[in-house]
Amino acid sequence: MPEQLSPQDIDHALQKLPGWSVRDEELCADYSFADFNAAFAFMVRVAMKAEAVDHHPRWSNIYNKVSIAFSTHSAGHKITELDLEMARFICAIASDVV
Amino acid sequence: MPEQLSPQDIDHALQKLPGWSVRDEELCADYSFADFNAAFAFMVRVAMKAEAVDHHPRWSNIYNKVSIAFSTHSAGHKITELDLEMARFICAIASDVV
Repeated sequence: MPEQLSPQDIDHALQKLPGWSVRDEELCADYSFADFNAAFAFMVRVAMKAEAVDHHPRWSNIYNKVSIAFSTHSAGHKITELDLEMARFICAIASDVV
Repeated sequence: MPEQLSPQDIDHALQKLPGWSVRDEELCADYSFADFNAAFAFMVRVAMKAEAVDHHPRWSNIYNKVSIAFSTHSAGHKITELDLEMARFICAIASDVV
């Protein structure tokens, strides 16, 4: 079972996750794209990764904007390494998509 | 430019849109699927329709649940025929996806 990370571990990880922060005990980011097409293309890539690692976001979309939040259900909705893994993946692909 | 519908027109249309209602001047529905895979497959179909008719939802997803809201930006965020068209499309496909 994934373990809850310490605030220090999370702060350290955030230094390499531009755009990400902790809000209400979730790892969150807001992305903006050229249009809906670009935003949804990004969502498709995130969805496939989420399915592959069985770790899914809480997210919303309106036209070119996507807001994403992660916490780990099996760790009492705390932030774990699984959430960081998804955030790292998203940081790596986001610049490709915009 | 699409015209704002009257409350009577909307009430009449809602009779043929199971699961849909008006909340905060938006046409809304909440869908639940077997899992994330099914929920996101549904979102892909909605996204392609939205792009085809250039009328996009405000929506959110968490695992197997999708919440969708429509209003018409060019009609001052009121409900128009465009919103009903999207809701009708979604009603038609939703039972395929679950």
